[in-house]
Amino acid sequence: MDEQVRQHKITLEESEMPTTWYNLVPDLPSPPPPALHPGTHEPAGPEDFAPLFPMDLIMQEVSQERYIDIPGAVLDVYRQWRPTPLFRAHRLEAALGTPARIYYKYEGVSPAGSHKPNTAVPQAYYNKIAGVKKLTTETGAGQWGTALAFACALFDLECEVWQVGASYDQKPYRRLMIETFGAQVHRSPSELTAVGREFLKDPKNLPGSLGIAISEAVEVAATNDDVRYALGSVLNHVLMHQTIIGEEALLQMAKAGETAGPDVIVGCTGGGSNFAGLSFPFLREKLAGNMSPIIRAVEPASCPSLTKGVYAYDFGDTAGMTPLMKMHTLGHDFMPDPIHAGGLRYHGMAPLISHVYELGLMEAISIPQIECFAAGLQFARTEGIVPAPEPTHALAAAVREALKAKETGEETVILTALCGHGHFDLAAYEAYMAGLMSDEEISDARFAEGLATIPSV
Amino acid sequence: MDEQVRQHKITLEESEMPTTWYNLVPDLPSPPPPALHPGTHEPAGPEDFAPLFPMDLIMQEVSQERYIDIPGAVLDVYRQWRPTPLFRAHRLEAALGTPARIYYKYEGVSPAGSHKPNTAVPQAYYNKIAGVKKLTTETGAGQWGTALAFACALFDLECEVWQVGASYDQKPYRRLMIETFGAQVHRSPSELTAVGREFLKDPKNLPGSLGIAISEAVEVAATNDDVRYALGSVLNHVLMHQTIIGEEALLQMAKAGETAGPDVIVGCTGGGSNFAGLSFPFLREKLAGNMSPIIRAVEPASCPSLTKGVYAYDFGDTAGMTPLMKMHTLGHDFMPDPIHAGGLRYHGMAPLISHVYELGLMEAISIPQIECFAAGLQFARTEGIVPAPEPTHALAAAVREALKAKETGEETVILTALCGHGHFDLAAYEAYMAGLMSDEEISDARFAEGLATIPSV
Repeated sequence: MDEQVRQHKITLEESEMPTTWYNLVPDLPSPPPPALHPGTHEPAGPEDFAPLFPMDLIMQEVSQERYIDIPGAVLDVYRQWRPTPLFRAHRLEAALGTPARIYYKYEGVSPAGSHKPNTAVPQAYYNKIAGVKKLTTETGAGQWGTALAFACALFDLECEVWQVGASYDQKPYRRLMIETFGAQVHRSPSELTAVGREFLKDPKNLPGSLGIAISEAVEVAATNDDVRYALGSVLNHVLMHQTIIGEEALLQMAKAGETAGPDVIVGCTGGGSNFAGLSFPFLREKLAGNMSPIIRAVEPASCPSLTKGVYAYDFGDTAGMTPLMKMHTLGHDFMPDPIHAGGLRYHGMAPLISHVYELGLMEAISIPQIECFAAGLQFARTEGIVPAPEPTHALAAAVREALKAKETGEETVILTALCGHGHFDLAAYEAYMAGLMSDEEISDARFAEGLATIPSV
Repeated sequence: MDEQVRQHKITLEESEMPTTWYNLVPDLPSPPPPALHPGTHEPAGPEDFAPLFPMDLIMQEVSQERYIDIPGAVLDVYRQWRPTPLFRAHRLEAALGTPARIYYKYEGVSPAGSHKPNTAVPQAYYNKIAGVKKLTTETGAGQWGTALAFACALFDLECEVWQVGASYDQKPYRRLMIETFGAQVHRSPSELTAVGREFLKDPKNLPGSLGIAISEAVEVAATNDDVRYALGSVLNHVLMHQTIIGEEALLQMAKAGETAGPDVIVGCTGGGSNFAGLSFPFLREKLAGNMSPIIRAVEPASCPSLTKGVYAYDFGDTAGMTPLMKMHTLGHDFMPDPIHAGGLRYHGMAPLISHVYELGLMEAISIPQIECFAAGLQFARTEGIVPAPEPTHALAAAVREALKAKETGEETVILTALCGHGHFDLAAYEAYMAGLMSDEEISDARFAEGLATIPSV
């Protein structure tokens, strides 16, 4: 029985919480390519985004400022659960028998149980002060819908959520959580929108997809004056709101005595906001020569936009209603396997992450889901937190790195983000424990089919 | 938009975490009556408990020491989520328009999502160092089973849980969470025990009860050498392990500037451990003349042991296998309605709380479930945390008190414990939102039937 005092949890005072978000763009050696108008293929201006977003967020989207002040009303809400803890995974390390030191930044302590409120709260706030009455959005597994419903409840905004049909059917608890916060949830594709009715004509679309749900939410926002749209990942301003994760982690790693910073940062990537939130502040330090971490994105084998996609202009949604963004994409019509990590099933990658990847400033790998759930279960039984399926991808990569350290004997310092808990995903663990889970098998032909839907620009 | 800095969260440093548990017994004006041997009706000695518990816990059960050191290995685990935050409910106060100041101590940040690990961890630890290989227990809604499974995973103990049949059927996610932590779950009554087979003969027992599940878990522990039993509430040592909640809250109330302490403390009571954990350290201060809070237990209208039971010796389980304890009881055969707050459906009350109640040191009320869920939903939409059905009882009482303050204009300071989140109880919120929930209606005849099962001692 170990009686010594070990520090598991590295906390920050409320007074140490960062009061600015970090914008990576001005620190990059070259600027990311602009979004293009879907009709003219000319660079999109703020007015092109105005039907969807309030001007404050559009200005953040194109900002060249390095730091942007977090409004007081947003800080006031953040303080309910922030600063979030950074944990040293002593018990997982012992179980692996590794000399590596594993740290995880835990965002599951938020009311919605994930990192998503970091951007849902400011998005609701900026819409509220712009006079917006209602926000629409899409959600897959439901993490983002939950977060936006929570934020809208606080700022007295209506909230309407289109949930990917397959998740709507399989995860009733997530829908109930969204409804408990007072929002309305529709199964997508729905009869409520023109694009929804169009997609419903082909039975293959019945399970829905994030791309289809985005099209529906965008249509309602674009065609109603006091309604706007909120996106939970991909866009620059969303990634920027998440940088509070990495800014806090930087302070906490220093507090833990890891003054040289991590050797390896691993994060899971769907749209990319959690990964960017953790890694961009460390990338700033890397670009400034203060640290030299390897920064590695981990994607699911079923939806490997960075490792199997192409870098091209593509739509953010399936119907082709959004501006064109240059990003790593599998094609806006690509339909990934229904893996349990619903939050990672997006055909594209955040344009800013795609640009960083092209610049050679980060790496990417993909991992099939069985290895991820094995890591997730080992994590639950040692660290006591049941991870959502999405961050099990990051944990699997952390375990790989820790086992490599065991072979070489190196005291590798590994940092990852545990972006949410898996309380609504236990059916996935049941499938894993019962041996009923299979790995993704996507043929080259299916990838080719998806890539063929990328428009030529 | 409120831009001022308000303190929502009152935190403690890890170094401020209490390192002792508090034992109320020596501070009471008279000692609580002893437990009796179920056969001889003589006071039970340590040897009577030995088939069920390791000696360290038995000694804590009968201890006259005011403070007991928390072992280092337990502190090491506690530090993962403790000290837990104390929140000021600014947004709920604003919604209620009350001058009252409402504070809630939030235990849902623990790995199991409730206060239960505070005792599960030391129970697993003391059993481990006593050489025990496996722990058995019962669980209703599943909070306790989850906590013990978590604790056993950390100390490498096997864990076998009998879950009340009705909950086993209705809450598969709770069972999955227990299994994810590596424990085995059985539906109770089960074919695995002699008492289970006996109860199964009468179809009325098919939904099970906490009393029946306790009988099954106790039977397996009592008849196997290296197996012991763990109880999640009721007993003195369990209540004592929970006092870390109140000890932290005392420090936090002072930090919040509430140096006179709370005017009213409200807590929900099933077996009583959460309520005792919060209130006993404040009761110590009250007995010492340092504070004068009203201390009020809130029970469900369907299982009102303090407000409708009698103070008498009764069994802790339905089969009558445990020692007899003097407590407020509805009769060990009383079968409460299947309300959503499964954790409050226990026929008896902790003997120590019963004694304190008889001494006139606390009050008790009962509240029907619809009022509780109304308070729970309002809390979720203002404070952002979806409460478990159990603490909605405490929240409903806090709301009553806050509305009374609104009438009188008094700045009443209210303290309550939000002992767990409701992530696995959303079906109950769905029923409430759909208007499908009904209040408990228990006839006097049914109460009389239960009371008739109390043995004459």
